[in-house]
Amino acid sequence: MKYYGGIEAGGTKFICGVSDLECNIIEKVSFPTTTPEETMNHVLGFFSRFAKEDIVAIGIACFGPIVVDKSSPLHGTITSTPKLAWQNFPLLSFMQTHFLCPIEINTDVNGSATGEFCFGAGRNTKDLVYFTVGTGIGAGIIINGKIAKASEVGHIPTKKHPRDTYEGKCPFHKDFCLEGLAAGPSIEERWNVKSARELEATHLAWEMEAYYLAQAVLSIHLTLSPDKVILGGGVMGQPHLLPMVRKFFKTLDNGYFVSREKNIDDFIVTPEIEEVSGLIGSFCFARDAHKNK
Amino acid sequence: MKYYGGIEAGGTKFICGVSDLECNIIEKVSFPTTTPEETMNHVLGFFSRFAKEDIVAIGIACFGPIVVDKSSPLHGTITSTPKLAWQNFPLLSFMQTHFLCPIEINTDVNGSATGEFCFGAGRNTKDLVYFTVGTGIGAGIIINGKIAKASEVGHIPTKKHPRDTYEGKCPFHKDFCLEGLAAGPSIEERWNVKSARELEATHLAWEMEAYYLAQAVLSIHLTLSPDKVILGGGVMGQPHLLPMVRKFFKTLDNGYFVSREKNIDDFIVTPEIEEVSGLIGSFCFARDAHKNK
Repeated sequence: MKYYGGIEAGGTKFICGVSDLECNIIEKVSFPTTTPEETMNHVLGFFSRFAKEDIVAIGIACFGPIVVDKSSPLHGTITSTPKLAWQNFPLLSFMQTHFLCPIEINTDVNGSATGEFCFGAGRNTKDLVYFTVGTGIGAGIIINGKIAKASEVGHIPTKKHPRDTYEGKCPFHKDFCLEGLAAGPSIEERWNVKSARELEATHLAWEMEAYYLAQAVLSIHLTLSPDKVILGGGVMGQPHLLPMVRKFFKTLDNGYFVSREKNIDDFIVTPEIEEVSGLIGSFCFARDAHKNK
Repeated sequence: MKYYGGIEAGGTKFICGVSDLECNIIEKVSFPTTTPEETMNHVLGFFSRFAKEDIVAIGIACFGPIVVDKSSPLHGTITSTPKLAWQNFPLLSFMQTHFLCPIEINTDVNGSATGEFCFGAGRNTKDLVYFTVGTGIGAGIIINGKIAKASEVGHIPTKKHPRDTYEGKCPFHKDFCLEGLAAGPSIEERWNVKSARELEATHLAWEMEAYYLAQAVLSIHLTLSPDKVILGGGVMGQPHLLPMVRKFFKTLDNGYFVSREKNIDDFIVTPEIEEVSGLIGSFCFARDAHKNK
């Protein structure tokens, strides 16, 4: 049997797996992200359970920032991460010294976007934007079935809610950008709670959050008009939040969008395969690498 | 000799022309946009000076909104324009009844973007965003050499300048969006002048304008990371404005962008062939139609 190998390399945990050539998961393991040496030993250990010639390609969806430009000599290297032990770690090169098969690497959020695009909430679309709203805010953009250049849409300028006096948490843009206002740590600091989960559904916090996320969806809609926007990540785990985002989107757009005849409930959605979207996305990367070899 | 035909169909004037098969202008005429009947008679009159078999394809860059979706039965029809006489005018069908050659139609701003992309400030780029800042704010987006879906980026949410108390002019979003704050008519109404040209270079008006346009460029940069952003249109005719936009862009981004090693003076520019970019873009559409026939 032939396999695709996949690695979802996250900042807190790694998930490794193999799939069949239809990207169905056959086996997977998960372990915490520690030092590169220890973590990569776990990776090699997992894949050593399969005959090397049976793994036809490997995909990696990696926490960032990593160099995705294939023409760069640093392609596949992690750069200025706050996880100091991983700074400048050449993840792709490391894997290439241990495997001869084609290896494709991209960002974690592009991995998740690709997983949802091929097998989750985004199947049957051509253009998709996937936001993860968690410790930070990241986005993967797929246009015409292809991943767009690395997007930093988490930092777009965002209008402040009239009742929000919080100074913002983005180290670059403070309260000027989406991440500074709407990532998990901003919610926690603004309301002085350990976790956003402590805030009940009627709390003003969620109105603000929905207002900010609706703006982001509106910006993306007006810029790229994707078929679908998926909102994932820890913050979206609050089930009352999605309907509020849709409501604000409608209010803010004020009829400009509705006239274009999209169904909002179908347009702004949560992920379908969030737990494994990164891993499955990495299988999709492997599939691409295999096809293009 | 063989020609491409081109029509830049603007809301106030039409420009018709023919080019050689390298898109060099051979001849062009311009006339005011009046009723569809009269205007299209001028169009047919111009092209009748050439043998029909010598015109191998025609491109049209048309004021909007028009239906660009080729699968729609209304493809090439002007829809809800405030120019009432043109509402529901099937421009593409009309041309097809008079010409047998392939005809390609797209929006005026995509025409200008394509003209600059192929022969102006955007040559040597792969991704380009072209803003026209005039009576409204439009944008043409080219990704990987291809026009992206019709963009409404002129309406993205925009943070208000701290000293701006103007209520905004967008019929949908008032002061919530870029066009409502930064199109020509907003400047005129905010400062109670007949034309923005009356406002001297040191007037606060230009600081606000630069602040708004810099936000738009920043949003586009963070979302799509294009190689270049071109700012055109009447409002950009003030030569002091471009440097102010670049300065604000740098300030707002606060180091997040510079670290990505782009040269701002090279990244945010004005058009090179603005007077004819729409016409030349329409020749490029004709060239595409000719190649794809």
